[in-house]
Parts: sequence; C-alpha cells; structure tokens
Amino acid sequence: MLFFTQCFGAVLDLIHLRFQHYKAKRVFSAAGQLVCVVNPTHSLKYAPTRCAAVQTSTEQVILPPCHHHEAVHDPQLVPCTCPLFSCPWEGHLEVVVSHLRQTHRINILQGAEIVFLATDMHLPAPTDWIIMHSCLGHQFLLVLRKQEKYEGHPQFFATMMLIGTPTQADNFTYRLELNRNQRRLKWEATPRSVLECVDSVISDGDCLVLNTSLAQLFSDNGSLAIGIAITTSKVHNAEDEM
Amino acid sequence: MLFFTQCFGAVLDLIHLRFQHYKAKRVFSAAGQLVCVVNPTHSLKYAPTRCAAVQTSTEQVILPPCHHHEAVHDPQLVPCTCPLFSCPWEGHLEVVVSHLRQTHRINILQGAEIVFLATDMHLPAPTDWIIMHSCLGHQFLLVLRKQEKYEGHPQFFATMMLIGTPTQADNFTYRLELNRNQRRLKWEATPRSVLECVDSVISDGDCLVLNTSLAQLFSDNGSLAIGIAITTSKVHNAEDEM
Repeated sequence: MLFFTQCFGAVLDLIHLRFQHYKAKRVFSAAGQLVCVVNPTHSLKYAPTRCAAVQTSTEQVILPPCHHHEAVHDPQLVPCTCPLFSCPWEGHLEVVVSHLRQTHRINILQGAEIVFLATDMHLPAPTDWIIMHSCLGHQFLLVLRKQEKYEGHPQFFATMMLIGTPTQADNFTYRLELNRNQRRLKWEATPRSVLECVDSVISDGDCLVLNTSLAQLFSDNGSLAIGIAITTSKVHNAEDEM
Repeated sequence: MLFFTQCFGAVLDLIHLRFQHYKAKRVFSAAGQLVCVVNPTHSLKYAPTRCAAVQTSTEQVILPPCHHHEAVHDPQLVPCTCPLFSCPWEGHLEVVVSHLRQTHRINILQGAEIVFLATDMHLPAPTDWIIMHSCLGHQFLLVLRKQEKYEGHPQFFATMMLIGTPTQADNFTYRLELNRNQRRLKWEATPRSVLECVDSVISDGDCLVLNTSLAQLFSDNGSLAIGIAITTSKVHNAEDEM
C-alpha cells in the first residue's frame, strides 16, 4: 500500500514538474532555449549545526568562509567551490567540475541561452538554487541565494561565476533576465571567478538583487524563471555601448 | 567681501555641475541624449515635523498618504500629485503639469531618451529626486526616492508615472538603465498613472529597487546617472518578446 502511495506521489511530482517546465517554455518562447527546473537546497554551510560547530573554534570564526584551506601548499590546488557545503576536497581547477557533479550532484547544462527555473521560492532563508552551465568552451556556476542580510528581510541574490581564473572570467559577459507580466529586469556583468568566493560577491551586493516583493512580482506559482545568456566580451566596454 | 565669497561659491558650483554634466555625457555617449542634473529635495511629506503633526490625529494616520482630499466632489478634479509636499491644491488633470512647474518648481525635459543625473546620493533618507519628462505627446513624472523601508537600511526606488489616466498609461513602456564599470541594470515596465500615488508604487516595490551597495557600484563621485527611454507599447506583450 505504501509503495502505491509513493508511486502516486512520484507521478504527481512528475506532472507538477512537467507543468512548470511547460509554463517556463511558454514564457521564454524563443526556440531552442533549454528550460531547467532547479530545486532548492538548504545551505548546510549556514545551518545552525555548522555555526555551532564553528563557534567551538575561535580561530575558524575569524577566517572568511572561502579560505578554510590554509594548509594548501601546492598553489595549483584549489578548494571545493561548492557554495553549499564546507567540503575538505581540494584539486586542480580542471577537475572542479567533475567534483561538483559527482560529489555534490550539481547538474550541468549545455547551450548559450538557457532558462533557470527555480522552484519553491517561498522556502525560508538560507536556501540556494545551483546549476552549472557549459557554454563557449567553459563551465559557469549559477547561484541563486535567498539570504537574510538584514534579519527578518530575506532577499534574493543571483550571480554567475566562471569555473576558471579571474583573467579567463574577464573575457565573458553574463546576462540574467526576469520577464513577467509586462515587467522586465536585466542584469549584465562580467562573471567573477569561483576562486573569488560566491559568499563575498553576495555580501558585496555586486549581483542581481531582488527584494521579496519584486521576486513575487516575477514569480509564477512559487517558481522564478531566470533567462541566462553568456557572451564573449572582447574589447568589451559597456559604457560606450549605451 | 561676503558678496565676493558668495559669487566665488556660485562659480565653483557651476564648474562642479558642468563637470558632472560632462562626465554623464561621456558615460551615455549616444548622440542627442539630453543630460539633466537633478538635485535632491528633502521630502517634507515624511519629515519628522509632519509625522508629529499626523500623530496628533488618529484618523489621519489610518488614511493612505494619497487620499487626503476626501472633500473632492467633482470627480474630474484631482489632487496635487507632487510627491514632495502635502499640498491642498486640486484641479483638472490637464493643469497638473503647470501646477507642478509653477508651484513646486519641478523641471520639465523634452526628448524620447534622456539621462537623469541624480546628485548627492549620500544624503540621508528620506530624499527625492524629481523631474517631469515630456515625450510622445504626454508628460511623465520620474521619481527617484531614497527611503528606509527597514530602519537603518536605506534603499533607492525609481519609477516613472504618467500624468494621465491609468488607461492612457497602459499605452506606454518606460525603461530605466544604469550602466557603469562593465555592469548594466535595466528595468522595463508599464508606467503607472499619477492618480495611483507614487507612495504605494514604492511601498509595493513595483519599481527599480537598489540597495545602497548596488547604488554605490553605479554611482560616480556621489552621482547616479539613469538612462530613461519611453516607447509606445501597442499590442505590447513583453513575455512573448523574450
């Protein structure tokens, strides 16, 4: 009996996902745009259990979240760049993608323009929605984060980071676009390198920032569709283009 | 002596404004774009003195700020739409523009695309930057407001409103664009009618919203340049355009 109930639940979930996918496709109607449904993950990095663990060591509290690998001696080794977990892994930049896929089960999508459909926007902060995006011969990490920078006032922060060096990142421009109900919001910037740490990009506010009210205006039934495009930015001068 | 000091001060101000104007022109280099330097006005509507006055009457506290003209009997008369002052004026929609120009000294600019250069962004909230924009046979009110929705965390809100009816407003789309240092933020929406009240648009968050950190990223020496464009939106369906 329990088996049948679970099967029925799974079928319902599938229908719901299919429906969301259909709706996102309708909104982002450009042919060939891949719609990817991204479910939220509660960030363990900021969960109370980890905070409690960190507080037992005063030394760790002083260190910024990204530099918890002080013992790295080989300069070519980089720490795990997954924004969700404090992971002890370290390796060469070339194998970060396979580590993120295999260990942290982060999906990877192909295509110059994709639609990131984040579900369950109502879930309490801290929550992350993460995918990798393979495009123009490189891999990018897209992070949407719900976080309470000011207590009681959750905000949404979205940014794109290159899984590569800062010098490589300078060659690209990423665009995030929200579009619903005769409103449109576009953010365009140079991606940061994952070596620079997603936490500091978000705390600096150098990304797409949405208040809860704006996020609700762009959401459809609890899901937020973000159009993503990446271009190369040779001789890029955004100021002169306007 | 005092006269000469004042003259010298005025000349310095003029040079400073000219320099800001030149910088904005350099950023928004498209030929023919008019750059308008807009100085801030401390909103008297939300100043502590008025709040104290309002608090003496419990009935007034319940009323939304826009509907302080309960005695209007002629439905064709509208209250003053100036967001800065609680003004007892009322008149026909056709004469609102001349009232705003003459009584509240709000400047009016011509042109399909203009650059709004708001100075002194560091001034404490509540502060407003306001101009009128004449375009496509209609007049629009552009309001940039610095306000503390959450105490201690000022934000910037920018919106454009048609000095006309909601039905007329539905025929237009306005675009606000920030562009600096390889970052670009665009907001596109249908303008609201001034009859709907700028305060409620801002409290709903249905406008361009900037955190202080983002505003600083887009500011140059304390001034924020906002590119403004208005288009007609016949058969407008933003969702299908993407």
